[in-house]
Amino acid sequence: MTNETQTILPNGKASRDISDTTLRDFTGYTVRRVAGIVQSDVNRALKPLGLRLLSFSVLVMIVDNPGLRQAHLAEALSVERPNLVAIVDELQRAGWITRNPDPTDRRAHALCPTQAGQNLYNKAVEVVQSHEARMTGEMGGDERAVLLTMLRRIEAAGKSSA
Amino acid sequence: MTNETQTILPNGKASRDISDTTLRDFTGYTVRRVAGIVQSDVNRALKPLGLRLLSFSVLVMIVDNPGLRQAHLAEALSVERPNLVAIVDELQRAGWITRNPDPTDRRAHALCPTQAGQNLYNKAVEVVQSHEARMTGEMGGDERAVLLTMLRRIEAAGKSSA
Repeated sequence: MTNETQTILPNGKASRDISDTTLRDFTGYTVRRVAGIVQSDVNRALKPLGLRLLSFSVLVMIVDNPGLRQAHLAEALSVERPNLVAIVDELQRAGWITRNPDPTDRRAHALCPTQAGQNLYNKAVEVVQSHEARMTGEMGGDERAVLLTMLRRIEAAGKSSA
Repeated sequence: MTNETQTILPNGKASRDISDTTLRDFTGYTVRRVAGIVQSDVNRALKPLGLRLLSFSVLVMIVDNPGLRQAHLAEALSVERPNLVAIVDELQRAGWITRNPDPTDRRAHALCPTQAGQNLYNKAVEVVQSHEARMTGEMGGDERAVLLTMLRRIEAAGKSSA
């Protein structure tokens, strides 16, 4: 953007004087903005590993819960089934997970990590921990805990009103 | 989902035992979940008015900053220009805003609310305030202020690392 368009608004306001205070007072607006910024940062950090936030989340869930079913994974991550299937396919093609018929239910698939997937998980968790430190580095552990607790209370309130 | 698929995992775990603690410890994961839940709730609340979170945000910005240019609006909301243009078109077709050539720059458009847009703004802000109370009702004003401050610190950290 050129300096000219940045400086003057039609009504004579400087660009930095645009007011978003009405929106800023809504937690939801601020949460959405922060989610977008955090997601961009973590996607940038994960890109060299061939992952992004959602595929990372799927890999982590499979490593932490080997034998997990796709249906349970979709539910746990609050992701639509078709979107999840595309990501599971991608992780499988890359050789990071296997998808086998579940011995207890032939129609279901059990998801397990491969050794390569386990190795990638170790690297990716480190990368995301560095990202986390960048985002919340100025907060102490106590403050981070308070923040997470507050966010979970909003999540619980949202779920109960759904 | 049937009771059967909900109860037992291939490895014998109950569905509620699926662990997402690795992910939950990342602020970004929790923020993204909360953003999704809050957005669903506010979209549901705004639907009877013909708005959703993003079109509401655009209307609010135009009412609070009459004469605003599209380019500045996209920047202030961190929205891609093409997505914004579609929403501005929608608000204009509904008769809530006008888009006029900017007298100081014929290539730019100045956005202003109509009286109908101003009336809708008043109703919509009330609806979103009720939504906000549902989401953060258990928090006191001080706690909400702490939460918003923390979120803004993350936003600032994310922007400076971008």
